[in-house]
Amino acid sequence: VLLYDSPVSGNCFKVRLLLSHLALPYERRSVDVVDRSGRRELLGALNPSLRVPTLVLDDGRALGESGAILWYFGEGSRFVPEDRYERAQVLQWMFFEQYEHEPAIAVARFWLAYSGQPERFEARREERTAAGYRALDVMESRLADREWFVGESMTIADIALYAYTHVAHEGGFELEPYGAIAGWLARVAEQPGHVTIDA
Amino acid sequence: VLLYDSPVSGNCFKVRLLLSHLALPYERRSVDVVDRSGRRELLGALNPSLRVPTLVLDDGRALGESGAILWYFGEGSRFVPEDRYERAQVLQWMFFEQYEHEPAIAVARFWLAYSGQPERFEARREERTAAGYRALDVMESRLADREWFVGESMTIADIALYAYTHVAHEGGFELEPYGAIAGWLARVAEQPGHVTIDA
Repeated sequence: VLLYDSPVSGNCFKVRLLLSHLALPYERRSVDVVDRSGRRELLGALNPSLRVPTLVLDDGRALGESGAILWYFGEGSRFVPEDRYERAQVLQWMFFEQYEHEPAIAVARFWLAYSGQPERFEARREERTAAGYRALDVMESRLADREWFVGESMTIADIALYAYTHVAHEGGFELEPYGAIAGWLARVAEQPGHVTIDA
Repeated sequence: VLLYDSPVSGNCFKVRLLLSHLALPYERRSVDVVDRSGRRELLGALNPSLRVPTLVLDDGRALGESGAILWYFGEGSRFVPEDRYERAQVLQWMFFEQYEHEPAIAVARFWLAYSGQPERFEARREERTAAGYRALDVMESRLADREWFVGESMTIADIALYAYTHVAHEGGFELEPYGAIAGWLARVAEQPGHVTIDA
């Protein structure tokens, strides 16, 4: 399979992290996340959102949205539970990540660390920062009495939430008050098969 | 099962529409979407995001996020395909809806038609309107040569996208140029078991 990828995108890292755990080989093709010219020519026929990650299967069929790609590879593996309620819970946390976590934490990180013009977004960053801390509060509360977001082992919900949480400091977020999150971040990184975002 | 619900929320309507198609009985409990005081007391132990829909199963276990609830009820029914790639495509369009469509179209609709103070949000509505039209363009393109978003019949991806698209005019969106979307909206509404958002 071919992965249209960015080395700094947490959404792309989610896919690379799962593929590493599953020991599935793939080809990476890097796409610029700052200069978006040429995206329609490159991705238009594959992913109408023109975003990365975009996956292309060996038969040419394409798939967009990190959550959908995680599900495609994760179903049937140890990273997606078999129980119906737990499967839905995994999706609950993945939708939470895309709706409440990523638009705050990933966007603040992009503006501050990767846009090349952080001053342009400074006025809008305060609102995203507040929203990001609310998402972190929700995570901290969930992890207060459990090791993983769903069930008793790491799932694609943990992978989805790890991606931007472990680099949240690049977006100006202070994670020191979040002890349960810190323990969970360490557990994810200790799993055999783990790779770093810059690997 | 018990559904914490709002009669005006498209996210809640998605769940009611699927439950109607599946002919599953449930109890509705209405939650105010403008006055959010008391939400923590009401939903805090059930859904850390404090949002509706929140589902409570007969054994007391809870589930949040409309997409996760749709998957919970949809898996194993005719509204979620059995093919692995098509299942992932259904999720692709559901994540698209929550990431690119809902934050634009549903939010503009809420500000304009339900917040009670549309003038307060007027300055920020232009950006959401532009984002909403981009999402509608993506939908129109997808539907140009197909009847449903995935496969050959209605899935929960159609239900998820229908919810806020069919009331997009309340957010100031002009749908007349979108002929393929208009045909698809009519197909969804013609399905046996369909209910309206105000039912």
